[in-house]
Amino acid sequence: MQNLIFTNDVEGAIERLIASGDHNITAWIADTNTARLMPAPPHLITIPDGDSNKTLETVCRVWDEMERFGVTRHSLIVNLGGGMVCDLGGFAAATFKRGVRFINVPTTLLGAVDAAVGGKTGLNYNGLKNEIGAFAPASDIIISTRFFDTLPLPEMKSGFAEVLKHAMLSDRAEFLHLLDHDFSAPINHDDLLERLQHSVQVKVNIVARDPNEQGERKALNLGHTVGHAFESLAMKRGKPVPHGYAVAWGLVTEAVLSHLLLKFPSDDVHRLGNFTRDNYRDFPFTCDDYHELLDLMRHDKKSRDGEITCTLLTAIGDYHIDQTVTPDDVAAALDILRDHL
Amino acid sequence: MQNLIFTNDVEGAIERLIASGDHNITAWIADTNTARLMPAPPHLITIPDGDSNKTLETVCRVWDEMERFGVTRHSLIVNLGGGMVCDLGGFAAATFKRGVRFINVPTTLLGAVDAAVGGKTGLNYNGLKNEIGAFAPASDIIISTRFFDTLPLPEMKSGFAEVLKHAMLSDRAEFLHLLDHDFSAPINHDDLLERLQHSVQVKVNIVARDPNEQGERKALNLGHTVGHAFESLAMKRGKPVPHGYAVAWGLVTEAVLSHLLLKFPSDDVHRLGNFTRDNYRDFPFTCDDYHELLDLMRHDKKSRDGEITCTLLTAIGDYHIDQTVTPDDVAAALDILRDHL
Repeated sequence: MQNLIFTNDVEGAIERLIASGDHNITAWIADTNTARLMPAPPHLITIPDGDSNKTLETVCRVWDEMERFGVTRHSLIVNLGGGMVCDLGGFAAATFKRGVRFINVPTTLLGAVDAAVGGKTGLNYNGLKNEIGAFAPASDIIISTRFFDTLPLPEMKSGFAEVLKHAMLSDRAEFLHLLDHDFSAPINHDDLLERLQHSVQVKVNIVARDPNEQGERKALNLGHTVGHAFESLAMKRGKPVPHGYAVAWGLVTEAVLSHLLLKFPSDDVHRLGNFTRDNYRDFPFTCDDYHELLDLMRHDKKSRDGEITCTLLTAIGDYHIDQTVTPDDVAAALDILRDHL
Repeated sequence: MQNLIFTNDVEGAIERLIASGDHNITAWIADTNTARLMPAPPHLITIPDGDSNKTLETVCRVWDEMERFGVTRHSLIVNLGGGMVCDLGGFAAATFKRGVRFINVPTTLLGAVDAAVGGKTGLNYNGLKNEIGAFAPASDIIISTRFFDTLPLPEMKSGFAEVLKHAMLSDRAEFLHLLDHDFSAPINHDDLLERLQHSVQVKVNIVARDPNEQGERKALNLGHTVGHAFESLAMKRGKPVPHGYAVAWGLVTEAVLSHLLLKFPSDDVHRLGNFTRDNYRDFPFTCDDYHELLDLMRHDKKSRDGEITCTLLTAIGDYHIDQTVTPDDVAAALDILRDHL
């Protein structure tokens, strides 16, 4: 069971967590950017930022520093950062002496609604994303919006796509509310923290029913079978796209598939398509890329026997995992996505 | 929940397990010795044998081979070997794509009663034993005596010390039965398999109540606070002793401590001491080594604040974890151990 704390008094919440346990040492893990967001703690492990550093070499550096600081099973690790810090720091903590307690303090919207919660930790290996990892939940997660004012807009949008996904899995009123979001306005911290609370709860409820991704947790893969293919192909071509942009395009594509195969209402497809057109521009693929995209979908970590499987919706809040789709279905949906953008 | 299978029809049991699941691939992990114990399977990952190879480099080689064979979350890993293969293979499987199902087929007595059961996996790092690891249970463990006829005698004795420990934690009749064991006689497979069944059940019952070693599981540390110090100091001096010999000497020392502090009956101390004298010879330490041994006990993974803590007994079957002992107590107990040997 993960303890979720929604607050913008982050220092106070961390202090209370440290005081509540009988820990010999508190060590912090941050990347070169997020280390600057808080006053420097005495035991700080700084790792280079960026997904290209989410490697076993970086994990070894973290283990070495933990040893140097005298971290034991009675210590506490604080992961301060985005998804990369939470994923890698969580793996390092979960495997050091077979497991040290760790808490996540996500500093990005994507980290708050995705990586920080749910117990997935990992690192890239041999160029494969999250190839090595463990299911190991943070004991506590402090979710706040206070680091978001300085977050670059593409990062905000990237996280927002996951917020949209959670609404699509759960609640149409929330979905419609989110589609009114204006990225050009200053952040309304109270409203956004409430959206986060709603969004994270959707993930928590699903994960609680299936912590090790045997079945229902695949619901959280909505938008990602197709989205991962966009992300991987863009990466392969040396022109990476933000994760959330790929997810937004994936959500539209899978909403179209849901309409074609499960009669998901077309007006909700259009609403989502218009929001994506307005906020997630520069879709970099044409019909010449379909073959490569379909190939990537067939090799998704969650696919079997070379079939393409997605989570699809009959309506907002009503999801169905393990839906097999044909390459022709996907190609038709990609055509409609491109018409929208 | 781990599924335990006690049988000397190992091939049959493995075949049934493979057939019972819907696995795309079965990959085997064995070391250079244990690979020869069974007919070579199509997907065999061979690792160099010996504790000095229980490293991250070896884990990387296993991960690379898993990738090459196309292992996925729908695959099955079979660990065929002693404690090193079960520990390292279990860690590699538990962290590959965040976890592939694995079964343990221990080929040594020590592996059968200790490493294969209970969910501890790990590797040595920066020269520290099991510094990196995870709690990750094998789904099934096939326990047999059929590989033991060719096991060197010191290895048999090494495992037998753990069998003794389990009896001391649970059952005086079993304890007395074990003290009649004659290592010079040929193995009585039926009787030994029954002893294994008894022994493993003791561990399983304790682990079930405390899988992540928060409390009661420390009972299994009986003999090991002192035993690990013997093992580490011998290793440090370049004259390693078998794990079980160190444990046997540790069991006697901690039985003496139990007598001194908790009135554990002296006749059982003497019975254990005599069996150890007859079967676990060549104790390599003198009173000149006490200082270094005590220092190692203070730095045990399970100790806190530099105190020496042991699991002690008031009687066979009646254990008490987290007992603090003073350096003087330990020195007195070591004197009595040396008188016995």
